Amino acid sequence: CKDVGHRLSGSTGAAAAVEYTRQLMIAYDFDTVYLQPVMVPNWKRGPVEILKIMNSKKRGVIDLNALALGNSVGTGSQGILAEIIELKGISEIQERKNELAGKIVFFNGPMDPTLLETFSAYGAAVSQRSSGAARTAPYGAKAIIVRSMTQSLDDVPHTGSLRYQTDIKAIPAMAISTKDADLLSQLLKDQANLHIYMENYAEMLPEAQSFNVIGQLTGTLFPDEYIAVGGHLDSWDVGEGAHDDGSGCMQGIEVLRVFKSLNIKPKRTLRAVMWMNEENGSKGGKAYANLSEMRKEHHIAAIESDRGGFVPRGFTSTGSAKQKQQLSKWKILFEPYGLHDFDRTGGGADIGPLSKQGTFLIGLLPDGQRYFRYHHTEKDVFEAVDRRELELGAASMASLVYLLDQYGIKN
Amino acid sequence: CKDVGHRLSGSTGAAAAVEYTRQLMIAYDFDTVYLQPVMVPNWKRGPVEILKIMNSKKRGVIDLNALALGNSVGTGSQGILAEIIELKGISEIQERKNELAGKIVFFNGPMDPTLLETFSAYGAAVSQRSSGAARTAPYGAKAIIVRSMTQSLDDVPHTGSLRYQTDIKAIPAMAISTKDADLLSQLLKDQANLHIYMENYAEMLPEAQSFNVIGQLTGTLFPDEYIAVGGHLDSWDVGEGAHDDGSGCMQGIEVLRVFKSLNIKPKRTLRAVMWMNEENGSKGGKAYANLSEMRKEHHIAAIESDRGGFVPRGFTSTGSAKQKQQLSKWKILFEPYGLHDFDRTGGGADIGPLSKQGTFLIGLLPDGQRYFRYHHTEKDVFEAVDRRELELGAASMASLVYLLDQYGIKN
Repeated sequence: CKDVGHRLSGSTGAAAAVEYTRQLMIAYDFDTVYLQPVMVPNWKRGPVEILKIMNSKKRGVIDLNALALGNSVGTGSQGILAEIIELKGISEIQERKNELAGKIVFFNGPMDPTLLETFSAYGAAVSQRSSGAARTAPYGAKAIIVRSMTQSLDDVPHTGSLRYQTDIKAIPAMAISTKDADLLSQLLKDQANLHIYMENYAEMLPEAQSFNVIGQLTGTLFPDEYIAVGGHLDSWDVGEGAHDDGSGCMQGIEVLRVFKSLNIKPKRTLRAVMWMNEENGSKGGKAYANLSEMRKEHHIAAIESDRGGFVPRGFTSTGSAKQKQQLSKWKILFEPYGLHDFDRTGGGADIGPLSKQGTFLIGLLPDGQRYFRYHHTEKDVFEAVDRRELELGAASMASLVYLLDQYGIKN
Repeated sequence: CKDVGHRLSGSTGAAAAVEYTRQLMIAYDFDTVYLQPVMVPNWKRGPVEILKIMNSKKRGVIDLNALALGNSVGTGSQGILAEIIELKGISEIQERKNELAGKIVFFNGPMDPTLLETFSAYGAAVSQRSSGAARTAPYGAKAIIVRSMTQSLDDVPHTGSLRYQTDIKAIPAMAISTKDADLLSQLLKDQANLHIYMENYAEMLPEAQSFNVIGQLTGTLFPDEYIAVGGHLDSWDVGEGAHDDGSGCMQGIEVLRVFKSLNIKPKRTLRAVMWMNEENGSKGGKAYANLSEMRKEHHIAAIESDRGGFVPRGFTSTGSAKQKQQLSKWKILFEPYGLHDFDRTGGGADIGPLSKQGTFLIGLLPDGQRYFRYHHTEKDVFEAVDRRELELGAASMASLVYLLDQYGIKN
């Protein structure tokens, strides 16, 4: 597991992960284990990434801790040297649009540390990363830099995907660590004409062949009713994608392994699914839902774990009032184990496309306080996951799958 | 904070911690900051610790990852070489008492990993460590080895205190890592006559002078009603005692700092207390309660944080039905912040002696899943504490202190 390492869609790591999880589920003797072909984007970071402040009066040249954003174009060998301009967020673009031409735009809106829910803080800040490039290119920005999406103050840059618009010029984009963002902002207060040099070789190659990996326990009574459980197999190309989302993959497999090892034969068909390409395209989730529809595989429910392998606090869900009511009824069964949080809307990026068939979408909701220390960084490694916390999440998912399997759930 | 390092009672580290926290509270401009003299045990681990399997047929001589237990006597330079005998727990002593003479007794009862509550598993296993030596010495055991108190399987030995009985011979005691415990147990299955060599220089020196450290915000309306909040300042002499209990100390100080910085003048007198010597004597807690009684300082409530700097899940308490009822009423104020667990009995070792004056005893209850990865080991360092989790605990304590201060609590 540790040996697979990171596994961005299209990479050799992703191919290794497909084979590793396939073999693992075969070793666990699931009824069926198979691959589902998916064409995926094939983005490469390139061999070198440089981001420097060039002309600080106080400090001279300063190397910044930076990572290209996923899907970003590179600068190529000529690099980009330009004046920097700081914006506090996407909302500031409109009033300062006339100042952006020829510059590198530095988005420095922090994830609000005073919000209890880290995902809320993330949601409020992440548009800088995902659409900052597309939103500033029309005004002549040459590149963007984004403050890393974390509430921690440290030297670790966080990558993550951006989206270009087809009719807008693609400009390079990099994330810098929060400490470097604070430094840059501080220096700008004293010296408005700071220049940044950016060089990297990121590029989007032609689509590559990849796969969803599926393991199945076939139902004894209602084999045509499906319950899918799992996470996404791809990760960013730094660290090991342990919390994001090795945890969810292993938990999905663990749910079926628990059924096997307790010799519980499910009434309905259970599937552990490792979806490919959540990080920069969600092609796996879409392909899974499309194929499922073609084959009339009715999914009564799907559970995704993609918020890290932390201690479980509840489940999010998206579905009909009836479905949500049923989940609420089961809440008392989970409370003695410390799961109290059942009311939030959610699910998962990979299971979202199943909503068309009326599937009840469920997301494992682990404690979120530490997630953004690791998210999309070199720190998201095997050792950052606590085994007990991971197992408690898997046990919670297995319990819910058991209930869904035994009692079904009406749309 | 990081610089102070570990600080066992009587050590230079403990003295540094006294001065560090005193100065910190002065810098925060608390109304009064002072030291309370306490005489403490002064146990030293000594310069060298050796524990080896000497005669494994398969592997020859094997060094084990081991630490002397706190308060233990040493073997001295002659060491102890003896056959080993494995017991699964204290309860096995009675039936095997005739086999113990001349041997090193190896207590290998694991902390049950299937218990959800790690502290329950700890409570069920820890008598091996605390009383294994005193319980086996009467039958002629020469020393004991104890499986480390953790549910993790790793190479890290966990120290912790033992208690001798005055009328029973004190024999040396060491803890070994869980992996080494499994190894030793495995080897014993194939080879009953395994011999262990133990050498260490642990010793109990004469009592030393130390201090509780106290910072106070004096109440405006009811200055004679006290609310104490804090943790214990001493730690074991490995790692940095970050979770145990640097966290509780910093949270206690943080509670008063929050009152100051929000300019909330408490009605009652608030005290941040850093109790000395929880780990091997609890002299600080006893001295604090005694002095408090002499001075007629009526403590209406005391909150201790001594379960690590993890995300808060609730509060434990010990007190009258009326007091507990009042706490229950406040529960709904904490639930939106993820604190649901208010029903357990608890408090803290240092505040326990205050029960004589009818004080409502309260313990911060953080998530316990990761605590025993770090507890009493070299891994319990500053970096193992997540800042957000620590702060959320402090905020929860500050909120409860605010309620106690505003509304009081009847015995």
